[in-house]
Amino acid sequence: MTDADTTPAGPARAPSPWRATILTLYPEMFPGPLGLSLSGDALARGDWSLEARNIREHGLGRHRAVDDTPSGGGAGMVLRCDVLAAAIDAATVADDPRPRLLMSPRGRPLRQERVRELAAGPGLLVVCGRFEGVDERVIAGRGLEEVSIGDYVLSGGEIAALTLLDACVRLLPGVMGKAASGEEESFEGGLLEYPHYTRPREWEGRAIPEVLCGGNHGAIARWRRSEAERITAERRPDLLRRPD
Amino acid sequence: MTDADTTPAGPARAPSPWRATILTLYPEMFPGPLGLSLSGDALARGDWSLEARNIREHGLGRHRAVDDTPSGGGAGMVLRCDVLAAAIDAATVADDPRPRLLMSPRGRPLRQERVRELAAGPGLLVVCGRFEGVDERVIAGRGLEEVSIGDYVLSGGEIAALTLLDACVRLLPGVMGKAASGEEESFEGGLLEYPHYTRPREWEGRAIPEVLCGGNHGAIARWRRSEAERITAERRPDLLRRPD
Repeated sequence: MTDADTTPAGPARAPSPWRATILTLYPEMFPGPLGLSLSGDALARGDWSLEARNIREHGLGRHRAVDDTPSGGGAGMVLRCDVLAAAIDAATVADDPRPRLLMSPRGRPLRQERVRELAAGPGLLVVCGRFEGVDERVIAGRGLEEVSIGDYVLSGGEIAALTLLDACVRLLPGVMGKAASGEEESFEGGLLEYPHYTRPREWEGRAIPEVLCGGNHGAIARWRRSEAERITAERRPDLLRRPD
Repeated sequence: MTDADTTPAGPARAPSPWRATILTLYPEMFPGPLGLSLSGDALARGDWSLEARNIREHGLGRHRAVDDTPSGGGAGMVLRCDVLAAAIDAATVADDPRPRLLMSPRGRPLRQERVRELAAGPGLLVVCGRFEGVDERVIAGRGLEEVSIGDYVLSGGEIAALTLLDACVRLLPGVMGKAASGEEESFEGGLLEYPHYTRPREWEGRAIPEVLCGGNHGAIARWRRSEAERITAERRPDLLRRPD
């Protein structure tokens, strides 16, 4: 009814915490490792929230069946589209602004840029596949974005979801002790990170590079940049070619 | 002393189970999700073993310090080489044949080919970094192979280690119900997987492709191959260019 620009400003609202909903056949895998360390502390403080919902609650019949044999034959079982759609519908509201992701090795490879976008948003709905996969029709039917954490095959989407969540949660405000620690790291400048050293100054005949012990901050910054470039060129020339 | 070829064959030995040792500051994160589902069943049966060792047991002084400030300055803390080396030495025997991996975004990207090699071997020693990273000298000093699960930053190596282990364990003999289910899947033929369908035949106006309902196995195989090629070309042309 009103134009957003002319709406009188109300009192400043506290931002809603970043909210993750996981659809899985193994809700007991969550929060798992995310319940410990910095992400666990942040979860306990309410800086983010996590709800793991069992797809099986929407299973069919007395046995709550969620899967069936693949059309056209073949090994394994396929997660039914009607069951998964019912689980998604029950976990979301009509105008739920959160992206809906399906963890899948067929998906777009996850990169730090996408992690930053997701962490800056309202949260996530994440569907964890199991068995051979999910019925293709639910992907279009419920607008799922297929995301892959890497070119390998997992037993299910749960550990992939934990990986994605960990990457996002560490970027949420207040989660990492020092904000600076989130900067200057791998991929943030399109480069792999430079080598780190700490005491002792010599260990098993290996010394810390002289430049790092001198206190010349300009020289240290140049050395680190040059090492990051060298390591990236050696190990991941594809990162240097990638349009950013 | 004896040539391996002339050693008389002894009685057939039962193969030792695949053995994973994790060095971490959060041993309570293991087995975590790997204690459930098929990998958990296999762990309980002894088809593989998992030992999570706390690096802090080798920490220094009254506070068992494991890290120190970065040489040359900067945010965060660096895991000390002497502490980590002591933890590695205590977790391995002199001729331990297992590869030693360090989960790190600077590492070689993990791919299914490497997963298969690792699963076919005796097991793994996996070091989980935390903080800004580990002192570079321990990588060469203890022969660590840096492995990355993807181009994003995690809060530590633990979830990356869980990812790697899950990918390996599902390939171990006896872990998956049907061996066939480990074949014909993403990356195994250098292609992303074809779409899956199961009942119902029609759902929200979307039908299963006709060819999958006909029982012509040759036509089904051709359709699946063609779909896998189409999806790979659309989403991941880099996989088609990758030398195998």
